[in-house]
Amino acid sequence: MKLYTVSGFNEVGKNMTAVDLGDDAVIFDCGLHLPAVVELQEQEEKQTEYSEKKLRGIGAVPDDLLLDKMGVRGKVRALLLGHAHLDHIGAVPYLAYRYKAPIVGTPFTIAVLKKILEDEKIHIPNKINEVKPNSSFLVRGKKRNYQVEFINITHSTLQTAMMALHTPKGVILYANDFKLDNSPVLGLPPNYDALKRIAKQGVKALVVDALYSGNDRKTSSEKIARAMVEEVLLTVENRKSAVFVSTFSSHIARLKSIVDYGKKLNRQIYFLGRSLRKYVSASIEVGMCPFKNNIYMGSYKRQVDSILKKVSKNRESSLVVCTGHQGEPGSIMDRLSRGKLPFEFKANDNIVFSSKTIPAPVNVANKENMDKRFRKTGVRIFDGVHVSGHAGREDLRDLISLLNPENIIPSHGSTQQLSPMIELAREMGFRSGKECHLMQDGQKLKL
Amino acid sequence: MKLYTVSGFNEVGKNMTAVDLGDDAVIFDCGLHLPAVVELQEQEEKQTEYSEKKLRGIGAVPDDLLLDKMGVRGKVRALLLGHAHLDHIGAVPYLAYRYKAPIVGTPFTIAVLKKILEDEKIHIPNKINEVKPNSSFLVRGKKRNYQVEFINITHSTLQTAMMALHTPKGVILYANDFKLDNSPVLGLPPNYDALKRIAKQGVKALVVDALYSGNDRKTSSEKIARAMVEEVLLTVENRKSAVFVSTFSSHIARLKSIVDYGKKLNRQIYFLGRSLRKYVSASIEVGMCPFKNNIYMGSYKRQVDSILKKVSKNRESSLVVCTGHQGEPGSIMDRLSRGKLPFEFKANDNIVFSSKTIPAPVNVANKENMDKRFRKTGVRIFDGVHVSGHAGREDLRDLISLLNPENIIPSHGSTQQLSPMIELAREMGFRSGKECHLMQDGQKLKL
Amino acid sequence: MKLYTVSGFNEVGKNMTAVDLGDDAVIFDCGLHLPAVVELQEQEEKQTEYSEKKLRGIGAVPDDLLLDKMGVRGKVRALLLGHAHLDHIGAVPYLAYRYKAPIVGTPFTIAVLKKILEDEKIHIPNKINEVKPNSSFLVRGKKRNYQVEFINITHSTLQTAMMALHTPKGVILYANDFKLDNSPVLGLPPNYDALKRIAKQGVKALVVDALYSGNDRKTSSEKIARAMVEEVLLTVENRKSAVFVSTFSSHIARLKSIVDYGKKLNRQIYFLGRSLRKYVSASIEVGMCPFKNNIYMGSYKRQVDSILKKVSKNRESSLVVCTGHQGEPGSIMDRLSRGKLPFEFKANDNIVFSSKTIPAPVNVANKENMDKRFRKTGVRIFDGVHVSGHAGREDLRDLISLLNPENIIPSHGSTQQLSPMIELAREMGFRSGKECHLMQDGQKLKL
Amino acid sequence: MKLYTVSGFNEVGKNMTAVDLGDDAVIFDCGLHLPAVVELQEQEEKQTEYSEKKLRGIGAVPDDLLLDKMGVRGKVRALLLGHAHLDHIGAVPYLAYRYKAPIVGTPFTIAVLKKILEDEKIHIPNKINEVKPNSSFLVRGKKRNYQVEFINITHSTLQTAMMALHTPKGVILYANDFKLDNSPVLGLPPNYDALKRIAKQGVKALVVDALYSGNDRKTSSEKIARAMVEEVLLTVENRKSAVFVSTFSSHIARLKSIVDYGKKLNRQIYFLGRSLRKYVSASIEVGMCPFKNNIYMGSYKRQVDSILKKVSKNRESSLVVCTGHQGEPGSIMDRLSRGKLPFEFKANDNIVFSSKTIPAPVNVANKENMDKRFRKTGVRIFDGVHVSGHAGREDLRDLISLLNPENIIPSHGSTQQLSPMIELAREMGFRSGKECHLMQDGQKLKL
Repeated sequence: MKLYTVSGFNEVGKNMTAVDLGDDAVIFDCGLHLPAVVELQEQEEKQTEYSEKKLRGIGAVPDDLLLDKMGVRGKVRALLLGHAHLDHIGAVPYLAYRYKAPIVGTPFTIAVLKKILEDEKIHIPNKINEVKPNSSFLVRGKKRNYQVEFINITHSTLQTAMMALHTPKGVILYANDFKLDNSPVLGLPPNYDALKRIAKQGVKALVVDALYSGNDRKTSSEKIARAMVEEVLLTVENRKSAVFVSTFSSHIARLKSIVDYGKKLNRQIYFLGRSLRKYVSASIEVGMCPFKNNIYMGSYKRQVDSILKKVSKNRESSLVVCTGHQGEPGSIMDRLSRGKLPFEFKANDNIVFSSKTIPAPVNVANKENMDKRFRKTGVRIFDGVHVSGHAGREDLRDLISLLNPENIIPSHGSTQQLSPMIELAREMGFRSGKECHLMQDGQKLKL
Repeated sequence: MKLYTVSGFNEVGKNMTAVDLGDDAVIFDCGLHLPAVVELQEQEEKQTEYSEKKLRGIGAVPDDLLLDKMGVRGKVRALLLGHAHLDHIGAVPYLAYRYKAPIVGTPFTIAVLKKILEDEKIHIPNKINEVKPNSSFLVRGKKRNYQVEFINITHSTLQTAMMALHTPKGVILYANDFKLDNSPVLGLPPNYDALKRIAKQGVKALVVDALYSGNDRKTSSEKIARAMVEEVLLTVENRKSAVFVSTFSSHIARLKSIVDYGKKLNRQIYFLGRSLRKYVSASIEVGMCPFKNNIYMGSYKRQVDSILKKVSKNRESSLVVCTGHQGEPGSIMDRLSRGKLPFEFKANDNIVFSSKTIPAPVNVANKENMDKRFRKTGVRIFDGVHVSGHAGREDLRDLISLLNPENIIPSHGSTQQLSPMIELAREMGFRSGKECHLMQDGQKLKL
Repeated sequence: MKLYTVSGFNEVGKNMTAVDLGDDAVIFDCGLHLPAVVELQEQEEKQTEYSEKKLRGIGAVPDDLLLDKMGVRGKVRALLLGHAHLDHIGAVPYLAYRYKAPIVGTPFTIAVLKKILEDEKIHIPNKINEVKPNSSFLVRGKKRNYQVEFINITHSTLQTAMMALHTPKGVILYANDFKLDNSPVLGLPPNYDALKRIAKQGVKALVVDALYSGNDRKTSSEKIARAMVEEVLLTVENRKSAVFVSTFSSHIARLKSIVDYGKKLNRQIYFLGRSLRKYVSASIEVGMCPFKNNIYMGSYKRQVDSILKKVSKNRESSLVVCTGHQGEPGSIMDRLSRGKLPFEFKANDNIVFSSKTIPAPVNVANKENMDKRFRKTGVRIFDGVHVSGHAGREDLRDLISLLNPENIIPSHGSTQQLSPMIELAREMGFRSGKECHLMQDGQKLKL
Repeated sequence: MKLYTVSGFNEVGKNMTAVDLGDDAVIFDCGLHLPAVVELQEQEEKQTEYSEKKLRGIGAVPDDLLLDKMGVRGKVRALLLGHAHLDHIGAVPYLAYRYKAPIVGTPFTIAVLKKILEDEKIHIPNKINEVKPNSSFLVRGKKRNYQVEFINITHSTLQTAMMALHTPKGVILYANDFKLDNSPVLGLPPNYDALKRIAKQGVKALVVDALYSGNDRKTSSEKIARAMVEEVLLTVENRKSAVFVSTFSSHIARLKSIVDYGKKLNRQIYFLGRSLRKYVSASIEVGMCPFKNNIYMGSYKRQVDSILKKVSKNRESSLVVCTGHQGEPGSIMDRLSRGKLPFEFKANDNIVFSSKTIPAPVNVANKENMDKRFRKTGVRIFDGVHVSGHAGREDLRDLISLLNPENIIPSHGSTQQLSPMIELAREMGFRSGKECHLMQDGQKLKL
């Protein structure tokens, strides 16, 4: 059995890992490198449809030509997707056609994928399968089948799964992007029972989100973020002023908290921006949008303009949730800050970022400059009303203790970001290069 | 009327501000510069009693000789203390004798002061007066009296007060060290009504805690910290292992949360360390220690040793709260990390720092080195289970909006730390050098 | 006499200070805020001519409408320019027409200004006067005249001047952007004699570059940078590979060092990029380009393409100096990194940044992303082959000791960046708010 | 053949690598972890002689018990020392006795080692051998001998060597602590010819100083530091004031520059401090102290006091070089800053740190606090008059290109500090886990 760390091991983004089982192979995740895409958008005069070639050229998609070279491509029997974030599913529209294999994910993940395909007007030939959280998919191989469990786990979007591939040599557990949150506001808590069960069966290899392995923490629950949202919205002096909130569009639990406290303020709630529409619609389709009747949504230019004009006249009774917490060019927040939309901020209006600036330089620059433009209006800015969706060092220790894997492969960051995982593993008795493997993009590990 | 920024305007620590009212004067706060004291302790072979001279020599106490030079010392009619932290009251034992004036503070502040005087075996000639939160003290001047309100405010210790000195020209509001916390876990919420009232009367000058004026935030409530403590104690896998928690000894609300969740774990709770004993005893004396019957306290060497031996045998049923979250030399945590106490940490034992390392270099060094020693044992470290007690930029905006003062004097930090307050004030219409004054230690401002 | 800190006191950029002398007034500098312009370029689909209105809207030019409001505009008798950098002269094309006053600067500064006016095809009605370094200009006032000395000082471009305005109340010395370099590689050393002389005459106010007042250093001489360039070019293994160098286009002394060592490598030297052409041409016009016969220059697309094709075939015998050390979109380096120019980097080709990334977020992002694109080719990157052109804390101390001014106004940064100057001044006996004034944009100081 | 990364692969300090050759073994370096020792000194009331046990307990010496466990200890035939820094030789007094093997180093390294043994009054049974730079030592094995070349390389102390162990399977090159400096001020330049020769013979493994593998630089020559020293001493206004300089005591080339420019100032030069005496005496013994006749040295308390009293009266004609650039407790600078020595700094006296604060937290704290104490006197501080002695990314690339080793083992830092070397190696075609090995303390690598 061989594991290929195709992509996502040299930087945060464009995750892809492949497992060669002999006659068959599977792929975990197929994501975009978002900063590269953002940069491309800034370069190109018009947002055109991206070609696979262009995206490969700028390093925005996994370099899966490795799998051709290694003779794996033809054996791929499933493309398994862990959750709905673009760095895990965003390259599917461009690369999936290369594999004669079904695409598999939880209902929310699949609903989001379908929205993306629709929006980008891309057709892919692959069959698309939904698997409920905490149930299994059977990958049909040449001579035998393989069970893949989609074990429910918590993260900053709905229906995130750790994926357990059962092989004759033991389980390969793909555990990218998670935290251990027993009070997740929306959705199920982590399925510890399933993890215990597969630990007993024997975990051959654990591919694990090590992004914050250097942080001495247990990552806080989403309920903490909820309490932070509550406090900012309900205790700050904001009665007569406008309130705008921006958060990760895919973070339906966070959106629920914002809507809940927005209602308490007796404000009419508007959602503005294309990516918000995409994720919220997907959550409605899978029956996981508890606030669907409490919001007005607008994404087309005319809708956005008309809503903002209304808000402008009813500042004290409106709350706008919109895109742009990273200062993304073209987002609602960005355009508001440049005076390109029909709403003008005044002194004491409130802008709440229920988010953290993702530390890619392009985000830092966009966000700082946007803040600066906003600040000229005398607006109030509440930044960092947020808790992370990624496990800290002590969550990782809990997971590894629980699973006792034979091999650990740190994932989801640069070599330097992943290196503290090596030290944690060492504390727990896993030796670097023996049981804990600091891999890079495009490498192979024999198991 | 003149205001003297005696100390605490060039660095965090040793706060002291004086107001010259003509015939009379008052002093706000009389604190220590703790890093200097810590350093002194490290230098001296034995912890001896400190003399005023030695403390002046290392810059550990306010340079109040300025007041002699300015002819103010003899007119001082009251030494008013805002809250019980050492950087606000710690120099009283060494400097108070210089003033023929009573010392005034809330009951908890006074109780702590008395413990310190007792511990250091220092007698001071001054009368000591207690004033309940949200009531007033009458300063007896030469020809007239002055009312000083002790307005209840929230911070990281009990019975913190903003002090409003009523003068013929308006109120001088000394607002050092606060946040606006409507859910303070223990004690009263901020007295907004009183603040609104004095705003109507007219605030001549506001001396204000500007330490985090550069942070775009409303500082979270203590209830958030409580939820973080809950999560670390109750959801992490710790059943069979020791649990040690360290937090600010004066933070009785935080200690309450730790005890509450410790009880839920069915663990016997021990408090170890001299400063814990000091603050907890003070809180008991003023009837504000809800957990007094749930803990065993030990501070003398023999008690500490005996308790730790017991804990060593009953790791799974004990929880130790102890001093040392900043890695202070000689604290319980420090001595534990050096193997100087009869308890040995094992792999998976838990150390929770319900605190943040105060960014003085001596603390950073002590804490990092202590962590490193701990880490060799395989212990788990949960750091930063904490929220700040200091106002952020948006709390400051709320306070200033509420008070609309004539003059703002940013306080509680270095020139560089205070400078963002200048920018916030400017956004709100206060001009640097006109209505907002970036003062330094030892300066005078005419009002 | 009143001094207006029009702009450049809240952030690095768009410098402008005005002095109201009663019947007459003068303006020092009239610069752009470059990050705002860069951002604008990224936003706009095409680089169009900028209007004053648009530039005002994004805060790219000084808000000199203040001078209208204060009744100063009509009295302005001279627009005095200290040196050729865009943050000091770049707004002249857009704002100068508002003043019926001549523009005055050293020959290199004026030559650069004229190039800019030509390139942007902007005509301004003002008379333009050249003043040799270390000589004077007579400002003709309503009732009397004022001498302005252009005292030669060292910085990172040619013919930089401290400007001493002689008034009846003493000298106003505008000392923005300088270091004290006794070995400046090109041009004259600082004119200490003149500074001593005006010190004797009495300096009423010193407006001074305090950007690095927090750095405990004497800024190194340009000769150190020259030695660093020498070492990177001559001792690194680069015989068979391409060498590209980028530096500040206005830094003629640095360019001289690059050309000198390029010649030692026996390489043909090419200069590519519009801003290089602009500054180098200006230096040729004023007779200060010692390397004019040693280089080929190209700035139009066709020239650039043709030169790069030639270099591509003669990697081992060419050295390219080009624009783009900050990763500016559209610069030669930026376009090279995106594969938009006919030269492909190979493993072991050399890219030397004889510069430092200016810490505006947009630069940091552009540079990091550009580096990342380059790194995929296996190229070698030598970053930071540079010394600063700005005075450190100890240079400032030397200057202030020399001048002993009555008033100090720190300049060239944000409140926070300027605040260490307050502390240095304090050490030297200047009190904050009395003799040392932390001003902000748009403020007035009576002298 | 097996290589043991005994120590120095988890943090900066206590370097030790062992090679098991079958019947025989050799050890490279045997250093201390200095921050641990500094901390110990601060803890202990008196500086006593340290025992091996105590030093092991605090992790100050390599954990070489591993070699006992692995059956290597008895086979060790030589203890080879690369250069005179304490993190490379400082544990010899405590651990060497465990090996029946000679100690081998260049004359300066050995001279320093002997001084240490003398000072600490420790006798070790091992034979001690000197090897001239660029010559060889023959390790006598059980059945065969092994040649070890001491190839001259440049670093921040004299006679630093890369050590090439010739084995039947190729050369093991131990290249810890170096830069590639072709103008080293004192001593020989790098012996590139020897490196090329062993490259031809075949380098089986390269253990390499990767501390700054993440810095995009070629590290500057010592001649740059010399020019910086020159500028600070000769161009700053310091005629009437005292001048104190502190630098690394082992950095004889730097000391030469300081003395040279001190002489130009016509100042009498004094060297104060025990470690200065140690290293300078060693350099005199090996005939490499060109300034030996130009200095007065003092290290005992009486000498120090008497010299400082003299300097105090002759401030304008003295220059003191002393210990304490890291703020080490007990150093001359530290004691000066605390008023414990008979010299008082006045305003405008000069303190030059020809050094960089080594980023261990204990150093940062000591230095910052010392600076703060100094600053109260109005003294001038020139910090960072220094260039590094460690290779940057591009030096490493040059070395690896030159050697083309089969295996690379990054050394001299924490996992995180070493991780950029993995990325550089990858660029150059070395795969992580295959040809480039991120090792940790106490690991084994089969070759």
